[in-house]
Amino acid sequence: MSDQQTKTAIVPTTHSGAAGPYSPGSRKGDILQTAGQLGLPPGAPHLRSADQYPNLATQVLQALDNVTAVLAEAGSGWADVIMVRAHLTDTAHFREFNTLYSEYLATEQGPLPSRTTVYVGLPAGCLVEIDALAVLG
Amino acid sequence: MSDQQTKTAIVPTTHSGAAGPYSPGSRKGDILQTAGQLGLPPGAPHLRSADQYPNLATQVLQALDNVTAVLAEAGSGWADVIMVRAHLTDTAHFREFNTLYSEYLATEQGPLPSRTTVYVGLPAGCLVEIDALAVLG
Amino acid sequence: MSDQQTKTAIVPTTHSGAAGPYSPGSRKGDILQTAGQLGLPPGAPHLRSADQYPNLATQVLQALDNVTAVLAEAGSGWADVIMVRAHLTDTAHFREFNTLYSEYLATEQGPLPSRTTVYVGLPAGCLVEIDALAVLG
Repeated sequence: MSDQQTKTAIVPTTHSGAAGPYSPGSRKGDILQTAGQLGLPPGAPHLRSADQYPNLATQVLQALDNVTAVLAEAGSGWADVIMVRAHLTDTAHFREFNTLYSEYLATEQGPLPSRTTVYVGLPAGCLVEIDALAVLG
Repeated sequence: MSDQQTKTAIVPTTHSGAAGPYSPGSRKGDILQTAGQLGLPPGAPHLRSADQYPNLATQVLQALDNVTAVLAEAGSGWADVIMVRAHLTDTAHFREFNTLYSEYLATEQGPLPSRTTVYVGLPAGCLVEIDALAVLG
Repeated sequence: MSDQQTKTAIVPTTHSGAAGPYSPGSRKGDILQTAGQLGLPPGAPHLRSADQYPNLATQVLQALDNVTAVLAEAGSGWADVIMVRAHLTDTAHFREFNTLYSEYLATEQGPLPSRTTVYVGLPAGCLVEIDALAVLG
């Protein structure tokens, strides 16, 4: 690490209209943390009604794509991710979520990240929220 | 980082009576993580009944102040924070929470941290729990 | 840190049959993050019915042992842990959880990690899920 590290906001062009007071990703030194990504297109409030995305698969893939975009904007990728926090709303979704997640990461080099999966409340209609911790360099 | 890093507990004087078996903050090397901060005055068990703090705004500002105290004790501040985990109990609180949070951080330099917000169960009467990950140096 | 850091999966022999698409622990550079550990024996799907582990104490101690195994496999231990995320399912379990957790860590050198404890949904029968963030070196 350099002696003078500066925190940098990571904002993919696709995330230009943040849904709240946070940065899509934040990097300082070698550490990059993404914000929690819902399964909706980022930065498009008029598209962000979960009613339009009722499908678990659609939401999971979109949330993962959102994370990927933040990682890429920082010059990183899943190979740098050591931890994924997956927030689902229903234990009945676990099996399908695992299948989708496995397939999404199947083309990545290197070991899978660690992961914690818990079941929580999310905004109306949202079925998944995912964030990732990466170590760069 | 130095070759010999030692984990240090970060204990602001205001947090001197921890509510449980944890350190208010923990630092090792450049990494500082605060414990989850409820919206009650820390270190004052006789004041810690949430019944006395029924207001979302009061709890959110107190929780943020508690985080600030831990950061300050470590010689850090919000400018070093790359991730905030916000745990609320009711999706109906999201809008007010965002307003309070934005105002609280409005005077800070630099980009906002990343954030994940989820809705969980908390101790009786508690409406918010917040923790922060910072990278120092 | 070295200039060329590689992410490494941390897989204790006891965790050889992961329950899902994740690594029990992931290390890159000085940062080690464990996956969320349930209170069931890892890597033994035929033993992983929570019905066989109905007791909070049994689950908490097993989850902590699972975390310990991941830390140990990485040449680390609780002294390196700066953050524990404890996910319980019932606020009524907090007191007993704290007692068990305190006793488990009582023999460790150095300050206790920071901790966030929240109440979430977990797989059927599971009462606790714990993960830990450690800084090595």
